Amino acid sequence: MRLYSYWRSTTSYRVRIALHLKGVAFETAPVNLMRGEQAEAAYARLNPSQGVPALVLDDGTVLTQSIAILDWLEETHPTPPLLPAGAPARAHTRAAALVIATDIHPVNNLRVVARLGQLGLDAAVRTAWMNDWMTRGFHAFARMIMADTAFSFGDAPTLADVCLVPQLYNARRWGCDLAPFARLTEIEARCLALPGFAAARPELQPDAT
Amino acid sequence: MRLYSYWRSTTSYRVRIALHLKGVAFETAPVNLMRGEQAEAAYARLNPSQGVPALVLDDGTVLTQSIAILDWLEETHPTPPLLPAGAPARAHTRAAALVIATDIHPVNNLRVVARLGQLGLDAAVRTAWMNDWMTRGFHAFARMIMADTAFSFGDAPTLADVCLVPQLYNARRWGCDLAPFARLTEIEARCLALPGFAAARPELQPDAT
Repeated sequence: MRLYSYWRSTTSYRVRIALHLKGVAFETAPVNLMRGEQAEAAYARLNPSQGVPALVLDDGTVLTQSIAILDWLEETHPTPPLLPAGAPARAHTRAAALVIATDIHPVNNLRVVARLGQLGLDAAVRTAWMNDWMTRGFHAFARMIMADTAFSFGDAPTLADVCLVPQLYNARRWGCDLAPFARLTEIEARCLALPGFAAARPELQPDAT
Repeated sequence: MRLYSYWRSTTSYRVRIALHLKGVAFETAPVNLMRGEQAEAAYARLNPSQGVPALVLDDGTVLTQSIAILDWLEETHPTPPLLPAGAPARAHTRAAALVIATDIHPVNNLRVVARLGQLGLDAAVRTAWMNDWMTRGFHAFARMIMADTAFSFGDAPTLADVCLVPQLYNARRWGCDLAPFARLTEIEARCLALPGFAAARPELQPDAT
């Protein structure tokens, strides 16, 4: 399969982690968001949302939206599982992942921040915007996960960790103060020590500059 | 079970629809977003994200994040199904739902629009902000769903429709031009003719004003 992605995109990073953790072979098709390639006609036909990632299966089926792709991966490649057993535990894991996927990331999306600039808000205001939503989301995330476990929900990574690690990468890019979130950065370090997370790091991707 | 919700909240509306469609009895606990009740200490303990909805099960388990709640409902109350059979079809249905749940709603969330006001952007700019993200998202949604089916993905409603109908309700509140989206408003009309959707309408909720 082929993953259309951008090296620094946190949603692409989520899907890369899951593919590597589950041992699914894929090739990377870079989409340069800085040059606007996501809006070019050929890509927009592939993904009407004009965003990354998109995963094209060997039979040509196109999957979009990182959370939907992660659910598809979980259904079709269940080992190792990225969701725990039991409906309530699964719901809690998904909810933490969605704090990042709905409360933080969309508001901080490249196109949203670009719009703020078009509306006359300067760089300092845009940076504060980014960091305020991240700080608020990380506080909620930290209160929703388990205490004293190696990962967010136990002794193996789940979808919550798959969403957390890319968001912390983005947080550092924007200078977000992570000092209040030692629990989260400790989990991050454990994740990045695993080969699946390590191989998905942005700086290792073919389009990294 | 008890649903903490606000009558006009589109995420609350999604969960109400699914509960009614699946015939799950629940009581409504209103959280008045206009009075800031979602940030009060007792509620923030229940939902660290300080948003609605939250679903409290009879054993006291608290579920948050509407998409996670919808997944939990699908797992625990599978009839009638709100996801089709087959992993690719499920992924396509989820992706359309997530266009609304990640590309439209979070950027238009009450707290985000309030922040725009605090940054000095006036009402006309805020309204354009709302409508631009909705228009862009509805165009993507319309290209992702099936053509010539009664609902977004076939002859029964799915999670895509459960997310679409509340977003169209919100679109009308903000004066969004829906003329380009006849396919979507036709689906909406078919949905609202079903008792489950009809019972979930905002104006029928106990906290409606």
